[in-house]
Amino acid sequence: MQNKRKVIASDIYNELVKNFRIKEKIGSVEIKLGSITAKYNGKDAIGDLLQEWLAEWMKSKNYYFRTKQNTQEFPDFLLSESDTKDFLELKTFNADASPAFDIANFDSYCTSLLSIPERIEADYLIFSYKMENTELSIDNVWLKKVWEMASSSGKDPIKLQVKRNQIYNIRPCTWYSNRLKYQPFNNKKEFLKAISNTHKKYPQCDQYKKNWLKIVKTKYLENTGIKL
Amino acid sequence: MQNKRKVIASDIYNELVKNFRIKEKIGSVEIKLGSITAKYNGKDAIGDLLQEWLAEWMKSKNYYFRTKQNTQEFPDFLLSESDTKDFLELKTFNADASPAFDIANFDSYCTSLLSIPERIEADYLIFSYKMENTELSIDNVWLKKVWEMASSSGKDPIKLQVKRNQIYNIRPCTWYSNRLKYQPFNNKKEFLKAISNTHKKYPQCDQYKKNWLKIVKTKYLENTGIKL
Repeated sequence: MQNKRKVIASDIYNELVKNFRIKEKIGSVEIKLGSITAKYNGKDAIGDLLQEWLAEWMKSKNYYFRTKQNTQEFPDFLLSESDTKDFLELKTFNADASPAFDIANFDSYCTSLLSIPERIEADYLIFSYKMENTELSIDNVWLKKVWEMASSSGKDPIKLQVKRNQIYNIRPCTWYSNRLKYQPFNNKKEFLKAISNTHKKYPQCDQYKKNWLKIVKTKYLENTGIKL
Repeated sequence: MQNKRKVIASDIYNELVKNFRIKEKIGSVEIKLGSITAKYNGKDAIGDLLQEWLAEWMKSKNYYFRTKQNTQEFPDFLLSESDTKDFLELKTFNADASPAFDIANFDSYCTSLLSIPERIEADYLIFSYKMENTELSIDNVWLKKVWEMASSSGKDPIKLQVKRNQIYNIRPCTWYSNRLKYQPFNNKKEFLKAISNTHKKYPQCDQYKKNWLKIVKTKYLENTGIKL
């Protein structure tokens, strides 16, 4: 960490929004090959690209961070030398639609909480972006905990992507809307309870049985000295 | 089409490979926002970006082409004013791995052949690319018909992406390998027969019953005057 500045997620949020004024900046994505350069006007690639951009911005600020070798792995950024805290995930979505990103793969998330229950504390930096005539801009920025962007779906204890009765991903609610039918969870306890209730409903979760929540709580107390 | 040059897929292939010498060019992908620019070193976004690049390259050559409003729709490019021929699809894959793109969604493909059986004649321009330390290059280029890059998988009459006994996509074989266990189909007839045989194997294909191949053939004869 020599010479690098140790920051926490809220430092990054504040610097991006208040000092860098990211919401007033415009940008673009370009592909060059030989003498031909094309500007990108799509959306599918923006999440991946903004992650590269954020890394470059953090370098320019001399902030300390690490990334995983496998970029698909959680989390996108580690803000300290610890492997159990200071996790930062970047999520992005098209500002003209509802948040459509995956909070996490459901099975991976449940399994990972059994070994690193501290993952529950991860910070999520969320960008909504616009892409209009190849001009990229950031419409809004949020810093959230996982339970602050998840909610019941009515049908399920937590909003999920389900296909043919098989759970794929945990999906976000529209946390910024005034007309929400289901509010985000109030705290991590409610969020974990909703996951545990989901286990009871789907056959694919039989592996977790009724012990999942207990194991997560016990392990969290062991690791942090704090009761969940 | 005024002032634009009408080309066919092989003109594009020849110009790209022999005159433009695409395999000798290097390039990159950049995202800029405010004063910070980051180079992309990932792979997920490359297919989308190369499609934008190819459009820009064709513009620079003054070639006539159209694209669909919905970029997810088949085909990527239309090389004439006809809606039933001169289809060009661009497919890309990482040169350090086997082709991993989807030829087409299986259900959409089967359904679309019922109304536009001429889709079988579509040309596929295929780029294998390398991304090394943010330097993008094109390793190889092929021009293929659909049956020249599809084969039996042994397990299925045609190589498929299947999850939980549900077919998702038609997948390519490694057509350029010398050690292929299953060779690509020899002609469109073999390819269509393999799709028809797949219908008999999967419950999700009951909608096509045994008439699918007959309808496709009849419609093709009606539309083109040629027997399939």
